[in-house]
Order: sequence, then C-alpha cells, then structure tokens
Amino acid sequence: MSSREEASGSAIEAPKMASPQELPKPQIPNSKYTKRVVLKTLLERSDGGLGLVGERIVIGGWVKSSKEIRKEPPPQPEPEHRAQSGHKDLTCNEILQTRVPILRAFMKIFGMGSRSGKKKEKEVESGIEQRVQHPIESTVILQVSDGSCVPTLQVVVESSLVPPGRIMLSGTCVLVEGEIQRPSDPGKHAIELKTEKVLHLGVVEDHEKYPLSKKRLPLQTLRNWAHFRPRTTTVASITRIRHALTHATHNFFQNNGFLYVQVPVITTVDAEGFSNKFHVTTLLNKMMKESSSGDDTGGVNLESIKVSIRQKSDRVEELKRTGSNKEALIAAVQDLNKTKELASHLEEKEKQKEKSKDLALVKPAKFNFLDDYFSCQTFLTVSGRLHLESYACALGNVYSFGPRFRAETSQSVRQVSEMWMVEAEMAFAELEEAMDCATDLLKHLCKWVLEHSTEDMKFVLKRVDQSIAVRLQSLVSSEFEKIPYCRAIDVLKQVREKKFDLQTEWGIPLTEEHESYLANEIYKKPVIIYDYPKEVKPFYVRQNDDGKTVAAFDIIVPKVGAVIRGSQNEERIRPLMTRIMELGLPSKQYEWYLDLRRYGTMKHAGFSLGFDLMVLLATGITDIRDVIPFPRSFGKAHN
Amino acid sequence: MSSREEASGSAIEAPKMASPQELPKPQIPNSKYTKRVVLKTLLERSDGGLGLVGERIVIGGWVKSSKEIRKEPPPQPEPEHRAQSGHKDLTCNEILQTRVPILRAFMKIFGMGSRSGKKKEKEVESGIEQRVQHPIESTVILQVSDGSCVPTLQVVVESSLVPPGRIMLSGTCVLVEGEIQRPSDPGKHAIELKTEKVLHLGVVEDHEKYPLSKKRLPLQTLRNWAHFRPRTTTVASITRIRHALTHATHNFFQNNGFLYVQVPVITTVDAEGFSNKFHVTTLLNKMMKESSSGDDTGGVNLESIKVSIRQKSDRVEELKRTGSNKEALIAAVQDLNKTKELASHLEEKEKQKEKSKDLALVKPAKFNFLDDYFSCQTFLTVSGRLHLESYACALGNVYSFGPRFRAETSQSVRQVSEMWMVEAEMAFAELEEAMDCATDLLKHLCKWVLEHSTEDMKFVLKRVDQSIAVRLQSLVSSEFEKIPYCRAIDVLKQVREKKFDLQTEWGIPLTEEHESYLANEIYKKPVIIYDYPKEVKPFYVRQNDDGKTVAAFDIIVPKVGAVIRGSQNEERIRPLMTRIMELGLPSKQYEWYLDLRRYGTMKHAGFSLGFDLMVLLATGITDIRDVIPFPRSFGKAHN
Repeated sequence: MSSREEASGSAIEAPKMASPQELPKPQIPNSKYTKRVVLKTLLERSDGGLGLVGERIVIGGWVKSSKEIRKEPPPQPEPEHRAQSGHKDLTCNEILQTRVPILRAFMKIFGMGSRSGKKKEKEVESGIEQRVQHPIESTVILQVSDGSCVPTLQVVVESSLVPPGRIMLSGTCVLVEGEIQRPSDPGKHAIELKTEKVLHLGVVEDHEKYPLSKKRLPLQTLRNWAHFRPRTTTVASITRIRHALTHATHNFFQNNGFLYVQVPVITTVDAEGFSNKFHVTTLLNKMMKESSSGDDTGGVNLESIKVSIRQKSDRVEELKRTGSNKEALIAAVQDLNKTKELASHLEEKEKQKEKSKDLALVKPAKFNFLDDYFSCQTFLTVSGRLHLESYACALGNVYSFGPRFRAETSQSVRQVSEMWMVEAEMAFAELEEAMDCATDLLKHLCKWVLEHSTEDMKFVLKRVDQSIAVRLQSLVSSEFEKIPYCRAIDVLKQVREKKFDLQTEWGIPLTEEHESYLANEIYKKPVIIYDYPKEVKPFYVRQNDDGKTVAAFDIIVPKVGAVIRGSQNEERIRPLMTRIMELGLPSKQYEWYLDLRRYGTMKHAGFSLGFDLMVLLATGITDIRDVIPFPRSFGKAHN
Repeated sequence: MSSREEASGSAIEAPKMASPQELPKPQIPNSKYTKRVVLKTLLERSDGGLGLVGERIVIGGWVKSSKEIRKEPPPQPEPEHRAQSGHKDLTCNEILQTRVPILRAFMKIFGMGSRSGKKKEKEVESGIEQRVQHPIESTVILQVSDGSCVPTLQVVVESSLVPPGRIMLSGTCVLVEGEIQRPSDPGKHAIELKTEKVLHLGVVEDHEKYPLSKKRLPLQTLRNWAHFRPRTTTVASITRIRHALTHATHNFFQNNGFLYVQVPVITTVDAEGFSNKFHVTTLLNKMMKESSSGDDTGGVNLESIKVSIRQKSDRVEELKRTGSNKEALIAAVQDLNKTKELASHLEEKEKQKEKSKDLALVKPAKFNFLDDYFSCQTFLTVSGRLHLESYACALGNVYSFGPRFRAETSQSVRQVSEMWMVEAEMAFAELEEAMDCATDLLKHLCKWVLEHSTEDMKFVLKRVDQSIAVRLQSLVSSEFEKIPYCRAIDVLKQVREKKFDLQTEWGIPLTEEHESYLANEIYKKPVIIYDYPKEVKPFYVRQNDDGKTVAAFDIIVPKVGAVIRGSQNEERIRPLMTRIMELGLPSKQYEWYLDLRRYGTMKHAGFSLGFDLMVLLATGITDIRDVIPFPRSFGKAHN
C-alpha cells in the first residue's frame, strides 16, 4: 500500500517530479456521467500511469483473466512470491479445472444462496463452512478491461474483501475503489489498483455456459454471440476503429463543405433498377390476425408457472432451513412437484405451438397493397443516391451515411443484407471530380486510423494482419492506377497463368475474381476502373458519347475489392428516359427523379463507399460479419 | 466591366489596400471537387465580398428571381437607371404575366427548338424571328443561390450572351464565369458578378408546371414536392441547421468518450414490448409471383411507343422545315397519327392494369415465416437501446444515431413512421447520470446552432419564429425543472382553468396535452419528469423500490414536447424476467438480452433523443414533416 510519498520517492522512470509539498495534484479526468475513471485515461498516458501512483480512484470493467495467490501455505505447497510471477495467468477455465470443488462451494454460499438437503453435498458444505470460519487468506489479481483501450488494468483484491470464487471468473463485472500503486510483481504493468472497496459485483452465474469462458475463440465462433463479442479484445478494437472511421468520415465531408442529408430507408423506388429488395409492410400482421382468429388457447402461461415454481422452491428451502414445521414442508414439496409436472406438460405443448406458428398459416391469405400501411408497395432502400441527388440539385455538395439493404440470397464474405453506406453527390461535378473526391476520402480514412487509432492498430497488427499498417500507409502515399474498363478487359485477357470462372470478354461485369486479380496481382495497388458498359451499371449513369459505355467507376482495393462505386449521373432527360424504358422500369415511380432534369438540370456526380468494407480494409479482417455489430445475412438474423 | 485597378482605386469601404503592384491575390477558396466558388465563401465574408472585386470566378446555382433592364427604349417608355432601382425585383410569374408572348416565343426558338405548322402561331414566330435578327438588347439581373448560405449572389447577364427568356425563369440552373464587381445599382448587395461566359444552362422546361414557380409557398404545400423543397430558402436553412445539429451530436459524444455503434435496423425483437412494427419480408414477392403467373400481357410497351411518337414528330417537323418532299410529309403525318392512336389506347389499358395490380391478388396466398428471407419474423427496429446495451456492457459509454420505425396509424405533427434517433447507453450509470447527460446534450445542441448557424438562425427568426433565439438561449442558461411523476400529477390535478382530454390520475401516461401544459404554462421551461408508473414505460426500465414506479424520465421542452426519453435499465435478472412475463412478451426472443444480466451485469442507464424533434426545437418549425428530407407517414410515402 504505497503512499503518495513513496511513489514520488521511488519514481525512477517517471517524469521529473517536484518535492512532495509542491507536488501538483495529478489530473485524472473522470468519465463525466459514470463516476469512474476510464482506463484509457490511465493506461494510455505516456508514463503508463506511473505519475498517478497514490491516487484514489473508482474503476469499472469486466474481468478478462485472473490468478489467486494464497498467503498461507496450502496442503500441497506452492512456490511463493517471485517464483509465482513466473507462471502464466490462469484462465478461469484452468481455475475451474484445478479448484472445482472449492469454487463450486464458494458459489453455493455466496452466489446462489441456496442449500441442498442431500447428505453427500452437505458434507462438502460443512467442510467449506469450516473454511469460511477460518478462510484461507489469498490475494486475487484480476486483469480488468472497460473497453476503452487495448491494455487491461491489474486490479488486486484481498480475499477478505470478497471471496475469490465470486470475482475471479472471466466476464465478472466489477466496480471497485482503490489506490493506484506500483505493481507488487513488476511485469508488463506499470501500475496496478489496490482495491479497498468493492462497490459492485456482477457475477457470472454459470461459467460453463458463458460463451467467452474459453480464451481466444476464433471470430467465426464468436459470431454466435454478437451480444458478447465486444468483450473480446479483437472485437473491441474493431469497434473502436469503426468508431474512428465514422468520425473521420464526417470530418472529411465537413471540411470539404458537404451537407449531411438523411435519406429515407423506406422507399417506393428501386434505386438501381435490378436489385433484390425487402418489402416493408404491415399486411402480414393483418393476414396473421385473419387466419389466427379463433386459434387462441388463452390464459395458459408457461412463464408465470416458472415463476411460481421458483417461489415454491424458495418456500421449500425456507421451510427446510427453519425445520420447524414438517407437515408444511411435505405439503410444500408436493405442491412444488405438481407445479413442475404442469410446467413440463405445458412446455411440450408450447413447443408444438411455436412450431406450428412458424410452419404455416393454413388458412389462405389475400393481400392488396392499397390496404398496406403506405397504400402502395414500399421497400427498404438499396441506395440513397437518387434521393441525395435531389438535395445536390439544390444545395450543391451533400452526403449521406446510413443503412442500405439487399435481399440477395447469394452472399459472400463481403456482402450481407444490411450494410452502412457513405454516399456523396456533387452538383456541377463530372466523373473526374467524383473519382478525385472518392480517392481523397479513401486516403483520408486510412490516414486517420493510422494517426488516431495507434493502440488499436498495433493490436490488430499483432493479432489479425501483420501487413496492415504497411498496406494502409502505401494506400495513403501511392497514386491509384486509373484505367478504363476496356483496358482492364485487355489486360485480363492477356493473363495466361489463371483461368477465370467468367470468361473475360468486353461487356461482362467484372467479378470479384477479376477485380482481385487486377488489384492484387497485376497492379498491386488500388485500381480505379471507369467507363463501364452501360448494361452492367445502374440506369441513372451518364451515357458516354460512344453510345456503349457509361461514366461509372469503381475503386478496387487489394484484398478487399470494390470499396467505392461511383458515377456521373445522367443529367439529360432524353437518354435517361430511354434507359428507364429499355430496362422496363416502372417509369411512374421515377417521375420525381426525372423532374430534376426538367427544371434546372446540371452535370453532377457522386459515389458510395461500402462503410463495412472500409472497416475490413482498415483492420485486415476478412469476413464482413466480424466488423458489423449485429450482422444480418440470408437466413440469419439473431438478436 | 471593372478591372482590378479600378476596383482597388475605388475601394472606399474595403479594408486597407496596397498599391496595385503589391496587391496580394485575394483568397477565394475553390470548392475542391466542382471547379466553382461556393457562394458562402463570397457572401459570408465580413466585407460582404468587397475585397474580392476584380476577381474572375466561376459560380453555379439556381435562379431564385430575376429582372430585365432594356437598353433601347421600349415601345412603352420605362424610367431608366436610378429610377429602375426603385422598383422591386420581378418574380418570374410577374414576368410571365407581363411578357408572355415574347417569352413563349423565345422558349420556342431556344428552349424547345420545335415549330408548329399552324398558321396563327407562325405569325407570332415570324414576328419573333425579326426580333432575333434585330434583338432588343437588355441586361438581365439574376438572384442566384447555390444552397450554401442564405443570401443570393446578384449575377448580371447581357442578352447578347444568352436570350433572357432562357435564363430568367426561376429554377433555371446556371454555371457562369465572370468578374466580381461593385453593383451597378447599389442596393442590398455589396458585390455582383458580371457574367462573361455562360458555361451551362439548365432550363426550366415548362414554367407553369414547375412547382416552385410561385414565390413564398407555404410549407404545407411544399410537402408535395419533397424533391424540390430544398431549393426554397426556408427548407435550405432547415437542412443546414439539421446538418449542424448532426455534427454537434457527434461532437458531444466524441468529447465525452462515447463510442459510436451502428445498431441493426432489421431486428427480431420488439424493443419496447408494445409497439406497432413493420414487417421486413420477401414473402410478398413470392406470393405475387405465384398469383401473377400466367398474367403476363407481354411485349406491349407504352414507353417505347412514346419515344417512337417523339421521333416521328421530329421527322414531321424536319420535313416541314425543309419543305422539299410533300408526299413524304403526308406519309409521316399519317404514320404519326396512327402511332398516337395506339398510344392512347395502350395508355388506357395500362391504367386499368395498374389499378387491378394495386387492387387485389385474387388468388389466395399462403405464407410461412420459415420460407421468409431470414427464416423467421423480422421487423424494422423501433429502438436501438437493447442492442446498444450489449455494447455498453463491454465498452462502457456508447451511442447510436440512426433511423427508427413505428407503424402507428395515429400520427401527429410530432410523429411520423421513420424518424432518426440519437441513443446513448452508459455502463455504471444510474438515472441521475442519464438525466445529466441528456440535459447536457440538449444544451450543447442549442448552444451549437446559436453559435455555428448564425445566418440560418437569423433567417429562421425572421421567417419562422421570432422568439426562437430567445427560447434557445434561455434553454441553454436555465436550470431544468426536475419533478417526479407523482408531483407532476399533483400539479396537474390542481389545474382549474383547463380540462384535459384524459383525466389526470396517478397511473395514466402523460399525454401531449399534459406535457405541454407543464412546460408551456406552469414551469415555462424544460421539465424533467421521472419515476413513472411501470405500466406506462417499456419492460426493461429498472423497477424502483416502491414496486410501483420505474426509473424512467422524459425531458419535456416548451412547444416541442418530449424531446428525450430515458431510463435506468433493469440490471437484475429476476425483476426483468417477471416484467417480460407479465407483459406476455415472447421470452425466447429476449434470451440474449437476459444473458447480459446472467454474465457480469452492472447498473446502466441511457436515453434517446428524437433528432427530428430536436430540429423542430432549433428552428421553431411546428410540423415534423417539414424538417425531414423525405417524410414517411401513414398512407404517404412518395419518392
């Protein structure tokens, strides 16, 4: 328990310090709304927090790993002190394996508070009770993270404050007050927190069931628990990088005079003319009501019975403990068993009901879009660019940032159903300017994470992709290769060492395979491809004078693919109408869009950046589902 | 055409200037990606742009109003020069009314390029042709806006550069190059642009049909043309204030250490337990396919016929003009008429088809959620707070900003189907901290617009709400009234001078009427009401010890209502499960949410800010549909 004096006296690596009397009070900014110090403010200081030794603070977070050091020699002697520092942190699972009986008992007493009446377990219990009366004193060392930064804070807790079994399991939430001190066991930590008061403990109820009880789970496995993932160091880092990229995006557009416009998610138009869309509707509710009327089982509620079981169990336990009224106990046990039977019966029934509800509505349903909520068909938007154009045609440079949707059944590691897009639209701009702006944005974002997310990038470099920093740096400094589509086709046609699934011919849409080959193998840097055949691009792209190609471009980045797709859009009404007609699109829907050409049209261009792809690019992660908080893909929408 | 020398010579009000040789080149920042100067950079200078006189620039924008000054005395003599400055700018409508024949003719020649063969019109035309041969020289003065700021730039165009009729109509888009000069007619403008080159002209095809051809349309009328609205000064100002508020929101959370998290729009859970939700589905596509198979009329395409008519008309005109081949002309006219007949026939048919498509699918459809895209029921999210909690339970302080949806059929001026919400969630925080944070955010936003959107606020003050600046200022400086729900009920019960639709009793949800009365009449400032009866708040709100109330709060702002709704959420699993059960919610859906309590729970609190309501608050606008770019409400989803 080092005092402030001791700290300043022994501060060798710490910056120059004044004598104790003059010592300025160290600055620890409080997290304004939570009465705790955010770990980042301690651990990302240049002195690692050393200058704060002796300060009393409150911190909160989740236990990532822990170890216990016993003070009295245990039956099987263990090496002490220094020797201890040699062995690795125990994961909670290791603890569970080696010390299961003790832990289980501790949890019985402190965690659950319930006792079993069975003889065998009572024996164990009595043994424990003895230990509680004469507890083995120990010191618990926790590694605690609060998600604000990569490193953890070492927190020391004496067993006299809280039983080790309650606090050591990974995932446990702690809010503790204590003093910052130099670590008793100098290792990788510059400081540790000596706990003096445990303000809150959020226990882990059943450690075996806690998904993150195992260390270093692969990202693929973590996808099953989107709600716990951010507690892992990797997903926390990704989240912080994602946050930084969001901030950088707004910063870029703000600095370049773009106005932010929120385009609608519910639309009546197909913004591309060929996308698979989700319907937004309230018709299904109506149809369900119609076909399920008279199907009500009414009144039976499994949940209420479960609660009743819990109450009745408590009562049985209570009666057992007091032991005063045997008859009442018997009656209570009988009552409990009866309720349990009912519950299991109902559970079975409910399962069947659930199944049949999902399975089919046997009664045929009719529907009519005039009865729908909006009195017409509405969809989730696939792109906000059409709506954004309307604002560009009034305010100049505008951008949008929001979720976009595709109901594709073929999905890849780079495409899910709900993705966030950054979209920009510029009045009085042509293809060239859109390419410039898109390039600048991309470079700005890469530069930003390198400069602002240094700690997270270091972690990502170590754990995810060792070449990520070099790749980002070269992306910032290199000039992108810029080639027309026809040249890309020529170049790909000359490739002998690889056979593409889709044969390379003028007119094909470039596949991910083609794009990868160009960026990864041929040019080894980002490639901008422009002037695509009109057939492979949306109807609104401006037709070039050759009558065959349109003023669209894609920016293909090595390893990630087409991060940005952009275009100069058709400002002339005739070619636009012709295109709508050729594609057989319902022209009535686009009247408002055509209006923009009828009244004061001008050249304009824009692009959209796949924000989730940008996070892949910045982190080196390869599957988009690992960088989206709650990913949605074909057949999968948990949470 | 003032040269740079002249400008500096006559610069009386301009800041001190060096002699011509030393004159530093004025700084006009170019809009980086559009090769034009953004008007804001000229017009919002402290000298109003005077220091830039003599500079050659390119500007682009839309004509808001215009007038024409003839150089030769017209048949009915008009007062010249100085006198002219006395009369008001003509709106385009006024021009149309006074000079319709000339304009119509000009449009014929330059705008449409087509001529009619009818005798009567030919006479007019020939008259015009004469005038074109000996055109009346005139100077056109345009007020041009590019949406970057409130004021317009005065742009002077000689009729020798472009016929006045093509450029004067409001809504016309111009991209012109010219020199900045002192206005020939000193009025409210410090500078004007003397056009030397017209780089682009986006004409208004049919001025009568252009929705904004009338000046000062009420906001209510403008709602019919969401795609043109931002061209009006009011909606442009609202959009810029909305942009500033977005920026301020991110700024607030960034400064307070919150991480931005994108929560999903498509969800499987009901985040409140009692909301009307939209289904997200691909089932309707399937059902439509099934029932419409065999219904294809195939091949008949009205649009292609319309194009054909246009081509044929052009050919007729061409033949008329050349006059060489009379037979060919007759044949062409006959062919044209035939095609026109076909078109009108098809048009009728298509109308009927459209109607029947909307009206009903007669074939009964069956559906089954296992066949749906996600293999289960999915909805548009009503709130992101549950998902956000999962991130708060790992990363501390987090926030989200995205669209939220309610399929309510009863909608008000403060509630539509798609609204953007700012949501925050803080680990280790309680009700008090959430109220503090929400209050700070609200004050920060109000302060921000006052400080950063001065020009737009001035305009809003003049046109929308004269008391808006005072209201915002007092909101920033006043302490909010903070009362528990029971006190609010007591206070309202004592009200004698007003009868509320819903009788004031403990337990009722406070209606807009109650809330307004408290904030507008009783306290005359923002009121925070907290500790609501549990029945009127979502299932996840933390139960207070009294067993009756929960730790929820609303911030009610005068004139706007409940801008923020927040709560401390239930961190204890038992009360939470009980509540889910009591409300009969499908508990399976909430298992992941309950998990957060099973493994390392802690106290946490948060809130959501109705961002669109915040824009109402900042602008004084009263209907939410006027501040949302493309509003969606019951029965209404245009664009």
